Amino acid sequence: MQSRCCLTLLDSIQEPSHLKSLTEEQLLTLAQEIRDFLVESISSTGGHFGASMGVVELTLALHRVFDSPKDKMIWDVGHQGYVHKLLTGRKNQFATLRQLGGLAGFLKRNESPHDVFGAGHSSTSISAALGMAVARDLSGDDYRVIAVIGDGALTGGMAMEAMNHAGDLGTDLLVILNDNEMSISHNVGAMSKYLTRLRSQPAYTKAKVEIDQTLRQLHGVGEKVTKVLDRMKDAARHVILPISVFEGFGFKYFGPVDGHDLPQLLSVLERAKELKGPVLIHTLTEKGKGYSAAENAPDKWHAWPSAGKGAAVPSYTSVFAQTVMDLAMVDERIVVVTPAMLSGSGLTEFQRRFPERCFDVGIAEQHAATFCAGLAANGKRPIFAVYSTFLQRAYDQTIHDICIQNLPVVLAVDRAGIVGPDGETHQGVFDLAYLRAIPHMTIMVPKDENELRHMLYTSTQWDGPVAVRYPRADGLGVPLDPVLKQLDRGKAEVVRTGKDATIFALGTMVHVALQAAEVLYNQYGLDVTVVNLRFVKPLDERLILEMARTGAPILTVEEAALAGGVGSAIVELLADLGVRTRVWRKGIQDEFVEHGSRGEVLALLGLDVLGIVEDVLNLVGRPTQRAHILDEVGL
Amino acid sequence: MQSRCCLTLLDSIQEPSHLKSLTEEQLLTLAQEIRDFLVESISSTGGHFGASMGVVELTLALHRVFDSPKDKMIWDVGHQGYVHKLLTGRKNQFATLRQLGGLAGFLKRNESPHDVFGAGHSSTSISAALGMAVARDLSGDDYRVIAVIGDGALTGGMAMEAMNHAGDLGTDLLVILNDNEMSISHNVGAMSKYLTRLRSQPAYTKAKVEIDQTLRQLHGVGEKVTKVLDRMKDAARHVILPISVFEGFGFKYFGPVDGHDLPQLLSVLERAKELKGPVLIHTLTEKGKGYSAAENAPDKWHAWPSAGKGAAVPSYTSVFAQTVMDLAMVDERIVVVTPAMLSGSGLTEFQRRFPERCFDVGIAEQHAATFCAGLAANGKRPIFAVYSTFLQRAYDQTIHDICIQNLPVVLAVDRAGIVGPDGETHQGVFDLAYLRAIPHMTIMVPKDENELRHMLYTSTQWDGPVAVRYPRADGLGVPLDPVLKQLDRGKAEVVRTGKDATIFALGTMVHVALQAAEVLYNQYGLDVTVVNLRFVKPLDERLILEMARTGAPILTVEEAALAGGVGSAIVELLADLGVRTRVWRKGIQDEFVEHGSRGEVLALLGLDVLGIVEDVLNLVGRPTQRAHILDEVGL
Repeated sequence: MQSRCCLTLLDSIQEPSHLKSLTEEQLLTLAQEIRDFLVESISSTGGHFGASMGVVELTLALHRVFDSPKDKMIWDVGHQGYVHKLLTGRKNQFATLRQLGGLAGFLKRNESPHDVFGAGHSSTSISAALGMAVARDLSGDDYRVIAVIGDGALTGGMAMEAMNHAGDLGTDLLVILNDNEMSISHNVGAMSKYLTRLRSQPAYTKAKVEIDQTLRQLHGVGEKVTKVLDRMKDAARHVILPISVFEGFGFKYFGPVDGHDLPQLLSVLERAKELKGPVLIHTLTEKGKGYSAAENAPDKWHAWPSAGKGAAVPSYTSVFAQTVMDLAMVDERIVVVTPAMLSGSGLTEFQRRFPERCFDVGIAEQHAATFCAGLAANGKRPIFAVYSTFLQRAYDQTIHDICIQNLPVVLAVDRAGIVGPDGETHQGVFDLAYLRAIPHMTIMVPKDENELRHMLYTSTQWDGPVAVRYPRADGLGVPLDPVLKQLDRGKAEVVRTGKDATIFALGTMVHVALQAAEVLYNQYGLDVTVVNLRFVKPLDERLILEMARTGAPILTVEEAALAGGVGSAIVELLADLGVRTRVWRKGIQDEFVEHGSRGEVLALLGLDVLGIVEDVLNLVGRPTQRAHILDEVGL
Repeated sequence: MQSRCCLTLLDSIQEPSHLKSLTEEQLLTLAQEIRDFLVESISSTGGHFGASMGVVELTLALHRVFDSPKDKMIWDVGHQGYVHKLLTGRKNQFATLRQLGGLAGFLKRNESPHDVFGAGHSSTSISAALGMAVARDLSGDDYRVIAVIGDGALTGGMAMEAMNHAGDLGTDLLVILNDNEMSISHNVGAMSKYLTRLRSQPAYTKAKVEIDQTLRQLHGVGEKVTKVLDRMKDAARHVILPISVFEGFGFKYFGPVDGHDLPQLLSVLERAKELKGPVLIHTLTEKGKGYSAAENAPDKWHAWPSAGKGAAVPSYTSVFAQTVMDLAMVDERIVVVTPAMLSGSGLTEFQRRFPERCFDVGIAEQHAATFCAGLAANGKRPIFAVYSTFLQRAYDQTIHDICIQNLPVVLAVDRAGIVGPDGETHQGVFDLAYLRAIPHMTIMVPKDENELRHMLYTSTQWDGPVAVRYPRADGLGVPLDPVLKQLDRGKAEVVRTGKDATIFALGTMVHVALQAAEVLYNQYGLDVTVVNLRFVKPLDERLILEMARTGAPILTVEEAALAGGVGSAIVELLADLGVRTRVWRKGIQDEFVEHGSRGEVLALLGLDVLGIVEDVLNLVGRPTQRAHILDEVGL
C-alpha cells in the first residue's frame, strides 16, 4: 500500500496551510502516512504515542479548517501534539524527539510559532485559550482560539474553573473534547461515567425526534397516556439530561462526533467556526488508533519506552510499590491515594490486591491531598503517590489541610529530581524548597532502593506529615533487607570518613559522592568524608555542626534546585550557629532544565562524579581543569 | 421581646446534644437569641459575620438531627462556623474571638472535638468529608459525614474534583450547599447563573406534575399538539436540565430548601439521614440574615472590621488599587485578574472604571494564573491580584504556565506576611520560599506605600514574571510621588550608613530597622547601616558583597518564613562567594503562626524595634536582656 508518492505527500506539508489544497482523498492518504510515520519513528525514539495516534484525523481537520498560527490552537498536555508537530514543519527533526537538544516531547512556545502555548501538565488549555481569546477581543483582533482537551484532563479542577469562567464571559472559544475514554490509565469519576452515558445515547437531535414521535402517537390513543408518558419521561431524563453539564456551564454542545471520521470532523468544525460564544465539540477517538498493540493496551503505550536498557535492577518506583504492599499487609491503616498516577507509580498490582484501599481520584491533585487529610483525620495512614511536579498542584492543600493540622499523610514523591526526556515541565526540582518551608513537615530522601523501603516504613510510623522523595530511575541493585526498620528521625549516616573535606550528599548523590571520593583518594590523595543526609528536615544538626567544626571544607550535593534546597538549609544552619566553615553547594542552578536522558542532563548539571571531584579539588585549593581530571581519572 | 429566660436558653446549650430536648418553638427562640448574641458580640470583637448570620437555622437543624462529634460536620471555609462554636460550648470565649490566645475565627481541630476538620481556605470540605467517610467505611464504623459548602466555594476546582470522586465512589455522604448567592463578593461564573436558574424555577417534583398536566390536556386536543409540545419541551429544558449538573456528578439532589425555615430543614435532613450514597441538599440562605445593614450590603459585612483605628493613612491595598488605575489609564495592555478577591484587593473602583479589563474569575486560583498566562501570551500585561496564601493554590500554574514560558504576568501578592486575626491558615509567610526557587521570577518588596507604586510600575515594564508582595496593613503615611519611576532591577537602596553592623531589611521591616538603628545609636552608641533590599530576586549581589566585606556583622530581617526566605538567599550568596561574615537571620521560625493583631503577633515573633535592637546587640558582642533594653529605651 505504501508507495513513494504517498510518503511524498507528508513530506510536502511544510506548513499547515499546505493542507488547504489537498483533496479529501489525499487527506485520508495523509492520515495513513502519518500513522505509519509515527509508529516507525516513535518506536525507535520513544515518546508519548497513543494520544497522538488517536488524534491524526482531528489534527488534520483542525489544521485544514483553521489557519495556524493566526488562529491559536492550544493542545492540553501536549501528549497529543506529535501530529501537530509533523504538520508544522518539524518532521525532519523527529529522530531527535525527547533527546538532548532535540525536539521536545511536549509543545513549547520557543520551538515553533504554531505552539502558541506550552503544555506538559494537564487541564490547562481552556484557561490559556480563554486568556488568549479575551486578549484578542480587547485588542479588537479577529481570529479563532481552539483548545483541545482530553476527557481525563477535563476532570482536573482547573478545567472546570475555566469552563465556569468561559461560560460566564460568553467569549468566542472552541473547546474540542478529545474523548478517548481514558487519560493515562482508565478514567476515574462521575464525569467519566457521565461521558460514557453521552457516548451510549443517541444525540440530542435524535432525542427531540423521538419525543416528537411519541407525542404524535399520543394523539387519539386515549387510555395509553400513562404508559407513553413514562417512555417520554425516560427519554427526557436519559437523553436530555446528560447534555446539560456542558450546557450548564454555558457552552453550546455538539456531539458525540466520530473523531476518526475525517469528513464528519471537517463538516462539524466548519459549522462550529461560524458560531459565537463558547462551543464544545465532543469527539470520540481511540488512543493508539491504527496500531493494534496500542489499541489493545493503551496505557502501556501512553509513552513508548526509550529503547535499550536491561531491567534486572528494580526501579525506585517498583520498590516503592512492593514496599507499600508489604506494609499494607501488616498495617490495615494504610491506604493509597493517587491522582491518575496509578500505573506510573507502580500501583497496578496494589490496586489488584487491595482494591478497597486504593484510590485513583483522577487528575485532581488538590482533592487528592485534602482527601488524604480527611482519611488521616479519621485514623488512616494515607500514602499519597504523586510525582514531584504534580505535588505543586496540591501545595496549598499540603500546607492548609495536611501540615497545619499535623496529619499523618505520607507524600510519596516520585519523579523527584531530573526526569529525563519529559523535560522542563516535569523536572521535580522544586519540592525541597517548597516543602522545607512548611512547619510540621518531615522530608526524607533515600540513598538507594533499600533505604527507600526503610523510609517508607518509618514514615508510616510517624505521627505527622512526611515526604519521601525518590527519582525516576533504577535503583542501585543493592540487596533489599528482609526486615524493615525504623530510622531515627533527623539522623544522618556517615558512609565514609576522611579529613580533607566533607560531602553532605542527598539521595541519588550519595552513591555518586562515594565514587568521587574513591577517585579523590586514588588519584589525588584526598580523603573525604561522605555523609548520607537522609533527612532534609529535620536536619541532623549535631552531625553537621560536628563536621563543620573540623574546619574541613564542605560540599553539599543534591538533585534539586539550589535556592531553598538542602544545601541552603545547611548554610542557614551554619549561619545560625555562627560556624564559618567554607561551604560549596552543588545542585540545580536558577534555570529550567531541558529534556535529555537522565545521565546526560545530570552530567550537564555537573551532578556526576567528575563534577564532584572538580568541586572538591576547588574547595581544597587545588583547582584543576575538567579536562585534566578526565585525563587523570580516565572517566 | 428579649427576656432573661430567653437568654438562658442559649446559655443552657453546653453541648449540641442539649438541642435534642428542645421543642421546635424553643429552637426558634434559640435562633433569635443566637442572632442577637452574634450581632452584639461580633460588632465589638470583629469577625466574619454575614456567613454565620445566614446559617443560624441550618446549624441548629444539623446539630439537632445529627450527633456531633460522632457524626462529623465539616464546615467549608469556616466563616460559617460561629453558630457551630456557640452550640459546642464556646459561647463564653466569644469575647476573645480572633484575638491573641483567644477563639480562632475559623474552625480548628485543636479547639474543640466538634471541629473535626480545620478550615480557612475555601472549597476543601467535600474532599475532607469524603476522606472521612471512606475511612469510616474501611473501619466498619457507622456514623454520618456532612460537608457544608457555600455556592462560591463550589466553583473552586477542587470542590468539583471532590464531587466527581464522591459520585464515582458512591460513598454515603451528605453535602449541604449553602447558597447565599455570593461568596465574598457577588458570585462569578456559569455555575452561579446555573444556581440562579435553579432558584427561580419550581422544584423537580413540581416540574413532573406540570408535565403530567400538560400531557393530560393533550388527550383529545388534537390539532393543538404542536403548541403544547413546545410548552412541554420548554418545561423539560428549563426544569429538568438544571438539576442534572449535580446528578451528572452522581449525587441525589434535594432542593432548593429555604435555609431559614427550620421545620422544613429538620424534615429534609431527617429524610436525607436515611439515604445511601452521596446526597446534596441545596439550601437558600441570606448572608447577614436578621441584621438589616448586613442584608443590604453583605460583602461589607463579610468580616466586621475590628474596632477603633483611624483611616487617615491609606492601606497598601488601597495604594495598590489606585496605582493600578493610574497605570491602566496610560497602558492599555494592563488588565486585572482576581480569584474572588476583588473587594479585598481594593479593585471595586477599578472594575467600575475599566469593566472590560477587570476579571473576577471566582474562587479559581489555578484557572486565574493560567488565564493570566494566556492573556500575557497574547500581548496583555495581566496583574494577578491575589493574597499570598491563595497564590499557594496556583503554585504549579505559576511555575508551569507563567514562569517556564517567561510570560510578563505581575503577581500582586497582597496579605503577605502576618495577617492578624485570620490566623495560621491566612499568614502569608511562605511566598518568598516558594517563589524564590522558580527561575525567571523577579520578586520585589516595597519599604512603604510610595515604593509600592514605583514597583508596580516597574513590574509592568519588565518582560517576564514579577511578584510584588505587600502586607495587610496601613502604609507609613509617606508622601506619594506624583511621577512613577522605573527601579533598577536587582538594586537595593542604602537608607542609613554606619560601621558597626549592617541590617538588610525587607519591606515592612525597613522602617522598623531604621527605628531600631536610632535606638542603637542614641542608647548604645552603635552606628548601623540599614539597607532596603527591594529585590528578593535577583539580589543586589554587589552591594551585599561590599557590605559583607567590611566585616561588620549582618542582620537580615523579613516578615516571612526563614526557611528559604531572603535571609536564606543572602547566606546562600555569601557561602557561594566564600565570604564568612557573621549573619543572623530574623524572620518567622519553623512554626505556624496563630491569630492575634498584627502588632501583637509581630512583637511575639521579635519582628519589632525591640527584637532588632536585641539581635544587633547580640551580634556585636554586647548581649543584653530584653528587660534591660526596655528599661533603657523606654519602649
